[in-house]
Amino acid sequence: DPGGLLGAWQQRNSTATLPHCIDRLETSGAVDNLRRATGEASGQFRGMWFADSDVHKTLEAAAWELGRRPDANLERFVESITDLLERAQDADGYLNSYFQVDHRDQQWAELVWSHELYCAGHLIQAAVAASRAGAGDRLLGVARRFADLLVKRFGPGGTDAVCGHPEIETALVELYRTTGHRPYLDLAARFVDLRGRGLLGEEPKFGAQYYQDHAPVREADEVTGHAVRQLYLLAGVVDVAVENGDASLLEAAARLWESAFDTKTYVTGAHGSRHRDEAFGDPYELPSDRAYAETCAAIASFAWNWRMLLATGGHRYADELERVLYNGIACSTSLDGTHFFYSNPLQLRTGHDGSHEDAPSQRLDWYSCACCPPNLARLVASLQSYVATTTDAGVQVQLYTAGRIATPHGEITVETDYPWDGRVTLTVSPAVPGATWTLALRIPGWCASATLDGVPVTGEYAEVRGAWEAGETVQLELAMPARVVAAHPRVDAVRGCAALLRGPLVYCLEQTDLPDDVLVDDVRLDATAPVDAVPGEIAPIVLTARGTHHDPGDAPLYGPPAAATGTPIPLTAVPYFLWANRTPGAMRVWIPRVS
Amino acid sequence: DPGGLLGAWQQRNSTATLPHCIDRLETSGAVDNLRRATGEASGQFRGMWFADSDVHKTLEAAAWELGRRPDANLERFVESITDLLERAQDADGYLNSYFQVDHRDQQWAELVWSHELYCAGHLIQAAVAASRAGAGDRLLGVARRFADLLVKRFGPGGTDAVCGHPEIETALVELYRTTGHRPYLDLAARFVDLRGRGLLGEEPKFGAQYYQDHAPVREADEVTGHAVRQLYLLAGVVDVAVENGDASLLEAAARLWESAFDTKTYVTGAHGSRHRDEAFGDPYELPSDRAYAETCAAIASFAWNWRMLLATGGHRYADELERVLYNGIACSTSLDGTHFFYSNPLQLRTGHDGSHEDAPSQRLDWYSCACCPPNLARLVASLQSYVATTTDAGVQVQLYTAGRIATPHGEITVETDYPWDGRVTLTVSPAVPGATWTLALRIPGWCASATLDGVPVTGEYAEVRGAWEAGETVQLELAMPARVVAAHPRVDAVRGCAALLRGPLVYCLEQTDLPDDVLVDDVRLDATAPVDAVPGEIAPIVLTARGTHHDPGDAPLYGPPAAATGTPIPLTAVPYFLWANRTPGAMRVWIPRVS
Repeated sequence: DPGGLLGAWQQRNSTATLPHCIDRLETSGAVDNLRRATGEASGQFRGMWFADSDVHKTLEAAAWELGRRPDANLERFVESITDLLERAQDADGYLNSYFQVDHRDQQWAELVWSHELYCAGHLIQAAVAASRAGAGDRLLGVARRFADLLVKRFGPGGTDAVCGHPEIETALVELYRTTGHRPYLDLAARFVDLRGRGLLGEEPKFGAQYYQDHAPVREADEVTGHAVRQLYLLAGVVDVAVENGDASLLEAAARLWESAFDTKTYVTGAHGSRHRDEAFGDPYELPSDRAYAETCAAIASFAWNWRMLLATGGHRYADELERVLYNGIACSTSLDGTHFFYSNPLQLRTGHDGSHEDAPSQRLDWYSCACCPPNLARLVASLQSYVATTTDAGVQVQLYTAGRIATPHGEITVETDYPWDGRVTLTVSPAVPGATWTLALRIPGWCASATLDGVPVTGEYAEVRGAWEAGETVQLELAMPARVVAAHPRVDAVRGCAALLRGPLVYCLEQTDLPDDVLVDDVRLDATAPVDAVPGEIAPIVLTARGTHHDPGDAPLYGPPAAATGTPIPLTAVPYFLWANRTPGAMRVWIPRVS
Repeated sequence: DPGGLLGAWQQRNSTATLPHCIDRLETSGAVDNLRRATGEASGQFRGMWFADSDVHKTLEAAAWELGRRPDANLERFVESITDLLERAQDADGYLNSYFQVDHRDQQWAELVWSHELYCAGHLIQAAVAASRAGAGDRLLGVARRFADLLVKRFGPGGTDAVCGHPEIETALVELYRTTGHRPYLDLAARFVDLRGRGLLGEEPKFGAQYYQDHAPVREADEVTGHAVRQLYLLAGVVDVAVENGDASLLEAAARLWESAFDTKTYVTGAHGSRHRDEAFGDPYELPSDRAYAETCAAIASFAWNWRMLLATGGHRYADELERVLYNGIACSTSLDGTHFFYSNPLQLRTGHDGSHEDAPSQRLDWYSCACCPPNLARLVASLQSYVATTTDAGVQVQLYTAGRIATPHGEITVETDYPWDGRVTLTVSPAVPGATWTLALRIPGWCASATLDGVPVTGEYAEVRGAWEAGETVQLELAMPARVVAAHPRVDAVRGCAALLRGPLVYCLEQTDLPDDVLVDDVRLDATAPVDAVPGEIAPIVLTARGTHHDPGDAPLYGPPAAATGTPIPLTAVPYFLWANRTPGAMRVWIPRVS
C-alpha cells in the first residue's frame, strides 16, 4: 500500500491512465474486434492484428486495481469483457478475434508473425491477475480452456513450435503457479527449449536474431534482436528455471543479464538502441538521440530483474529494478497520466522532426501499436507487489516508498520522502510479537554512505535481526548527494559527457530552463564544480550546476579542432522522468563536459 | 579518358563490376522477369517489384562503357536487352514486368509505392546514355514510346500525380535534352511542382516526409525523409530549374543544399543518418556506427552537385563532388570490383553483429534490393564526363586525374598522381592554336596553400588566360599535408574525436593495423603530434600518427568520470575507401582525441 511517489503513480494510474486505456479500447476498435467474433459488431477489424492483447493487458490492470480497492465501474468492465471473451471463445478453447473472423484459414499457420501465443499469454496473465487479486475466477476458466488447447496442440507429442513474440512462456508458468497444473509448466519449458532451433523459418523476415531464434537460450551469450521479445523471453526463462530447478537455464539467464547490463543498457535502465527492428544494438552502441528505449522493454526488464532477484537474491537485480522503474518506465507517462512515450530517448535536439510516431517531440495520447499504455497500467496497478521480498529468515525491503508493507512476518510501516530524500523510517508490527527474524534494508548500489540508526553500514543490505515487538523503529539514512556520472569509454555516443544523478533518479536539462538564446545543444557542464540539490517547482528536488554556453556561431560542419570558449551560465537539471511536461523543447541527459 | 585512380576504377568497372552485374541480372531473375512479360520465361516474378530498374541501370552502364571502347559482348548484351524490352513493351508504350504479368489490375493504381515512374526513369536514362554514347538509338524508341504515354497520362490535362520515388524528373529532362521534345520537360516540371501536395495520400506509410511529399519543393527548407528519394528529386529540380530558367526553383535547391551540407553530411560526403526509413536525420544527427550512408544516396549527391555546379559554377559543389566520389562512393566497391557496401558506416565495432544485410561486417556480392551495384557501374562507366566543365570563356578542370581531357577549346593532357600527390601538370593542345581562353584549375576547399608555376595562388580557381599554343604547360601544386579535422560541436556522435584527412581522402583506422591486444575501440589520437604521410601497402600513401591505448579493464558501464591513462602506441591510418579489403575487423574514421 504505497504512498509517496509510488503511491501517487498508483493513484494517477487509477484515476487517469486506466480509465483512459479502457476508453481507448473502445475508440480504437479493440473491443469491437472481439464483438465481431461474437457477431455483436460488424465493420472491419481495426488496429494491429494483435490488438486483443491491448484488451487483455487492460483487463489485467483492472484486475490488479480491483485487488487494491473496490470500484463498481472497473468491476463492470471486467465482468463485461469476461462475458465477451467467454462468448467469443471457440468450443475448443481458441480465442483470437483477428484469426477467428477474417483469417480462420491462417489460424496457427504462421506463428513467426501471428502473435497468437503472445495474445494467449496476455489473456492468461489477465486471468492469473484476476484470480490472485480476488477479482473473480471466471476469466481463469477462459484462460485454462485456451491453455489446455495449447498443451494438446504444442505439448509433448504435439507440434514443435514457438511464437515469434515471447510472452506465453512466463504466462504459462504463472498459470501453473496459480493452478498447480503441471502441463502448463512443461509446455513453457518446451517453448523455451525449442527456441533457437529454426522453427520460425530458415530466413524469417528481419532475421532469426530478431526473434531470438538464432541460438538456443542455453547457448546464447548476447542479448540481441527485438528488445521486448528478448526480455519477455528471459522473464519466462527464469520462471521455468526456478520452477524446474534448472541450474543451467538460470546460468544462461545470468550470462545474458551480464551482456545486457554490462554493455547494452541506458543510464535510465532502458533497453533498445535501434529504431530499426526495435532492437538491441552492438555492445556499447547506446545513442541518446536515437535511443529506442521502448516503454514495454523497460517494463520487461523490470519483470526480468524481479524474477532474477527472487531466484537468486542478487542485490544488483534490485538495483536495476529501481533504476528502470524511476527512469526508463516512469518517464513514459505524462504528469496527467493520459499521454505516453513509446520510445524514451535521452536527447531531443533543437529542430527535431517530431512527425514520426516512433520519435515524437512529446508524449502522445495513444499509438497505432498501443502495446505500451496498457502495459504501464498493469504494472503500476501492481507496483505494491514489488516493494519487498520475504524469506523464512525475514523481510527484505527492496524499494523505499512511504506506506505499509504487509508480510507473513508482520507489517512494516515506512515513512520517507524517497526518492527525494534518503531518510527511511521503518516501524515494525510483527505478526507474532517477539518472533525473531531479520529485516534487511537494501543499500542501493548508487549509495556510497549509509547509516542505520546512526551507525555506518556497508554492504548490499543493512540487516537488523531481532525479536520484534510492536512499534519498534529502525531508521536508515541513505546519503543522497548529486552525482556526476560518465559512461564507459567505449560508449561513443556520450564521449566527453556527464549525466547528473541523485539517488535513483537521472536528471536532464530542458530548454525551458534556459534563456531562449542559449540552446541546450550548446551548453557545457563544469563537472568539477559543485552540483547542488535544491527545491524545485516541477519536482521537490532539482539540481543546480555550473556550466558554460558555447555559441558555435558559423562553425563549419568539419574543420580544424577549435578550442571552445564559453560564457558561464547556471544550469538547472530536472528529473528525467518529468521531462516534456512543460513548454515543449529540446532535452538532454548527457551534457558535454567543459574540457 | 582518365588514367590514375579514376582510370583504374573505370578499368575495374569494365572488367569486373559490369560483367558481375550482367551476370547477376540473370541469376537474380531480373531479366527473366522481363522474359515472363514476353512469354519467353515462366516461373515466379523474382526480386523486388522494381527489379526492372536493375536491368535499366546495367544497360545504362553498358551503354556508357561502349562509348569508351568497343566490346562485342557488351554490344550483344545491349542488343539483346533492347530486343527484349521492345518485345515486352505494351502497344501503348507501357513497360514494367511486375505489373504487366501478375499485377495488371494494379497498373498505375498505387504510385506511392509502385516505382512505375521510377523504373520508367531509369529506362529513359539508359536510352539517353545509349544515344549519347553512340550505342544505338533503338532503345531511345522504347523510352520515347513510354515517355509519350506518360505525357498523355500525366501531362497537362491528365492525372495529377507524382511517383513515390523520384527519378523520372531528371530522366525526362535528359530525354528532352536529347530529343528537343518539350513536352518531356514540361512533364518533369509538372512532377516537380505537384510534389508536396498530398498526392501520395494523406497518411502514406512512413509519413509524407519519407517521399518529400510534405511540402512543395519551393517551400521546403530542410532535406528530409528517404535520402535517395530526396537527392534524386533535387537533381531533377535543378534540371528543371536550369532548362526553364526558373530562378525560384534553383533558389529552393540552393537552400536545401545548405540544409544538407551544413548540417546533415558525413565527413565522407555520404548522406542518410538513419537505418530506419533509410532517412536523413535531424540536423547534426550523424552517428558513425549507424550511418546509413547508402551508396545510391552518395551517387545521387554526386549527380545533384554536378548539376548545381553546371547551373551556378559554384566552387563548393565541385568540392562536394570530389569528397563524395573519393570517399562515400569509392568506399562501396571492393578492390576486386565484385563486392559492395549498400550502407557505408564510418565505424564498425569489435563484436559487431554483421548478420543483417543492411549492416554487414564486410561487402557483399549482391543484395536482395540490388539498387547500388548497377548504380555504381553506370556512374563509374561515365566518370570521365565529370572531370571538367567548359564555358565560352574556357575550361574549368574540376577533378584531377591523369589522362586527356577533350574540350571544344582543345585537349588537355594531365599528368599527376592525384589524389596521392598534389602536383598536377597540364599540357594544352588547343583546338585553334593561338586562341585565347582561360584555363581554370580548381583549388579544392581542403587546400590551404597552392602554387601555379611556382607562384602562390589563392581563391577558388587558379586561372590562366592565354593565347594557347600547342604544348604549353601549366603546373599546379596543391599542398597536401595530412589534416586533423573535428566536427561541429553539435555533432554529438563524434564529440572529442578527430578524423585524419589528406587531400580529398578521408582516412581510417583498421583493426588489422593494430596489435591483437589493442582494440581499435580503445585507441586515442594525440592530435597535437605530427601526422605523417608515408608509402603504404594497401595504398600509395598511408598516414602515421601518435596515439595511446586505453585498456578499459573492468570499467563499469556508468561510473564517476575517470582520468584516462594510456600507453603510447603508433597508429597507421589507411584510406577509408579501401577499408575491409584485408583481414576483416573493426574500423573507425573518428578517433577519440587524447584529452
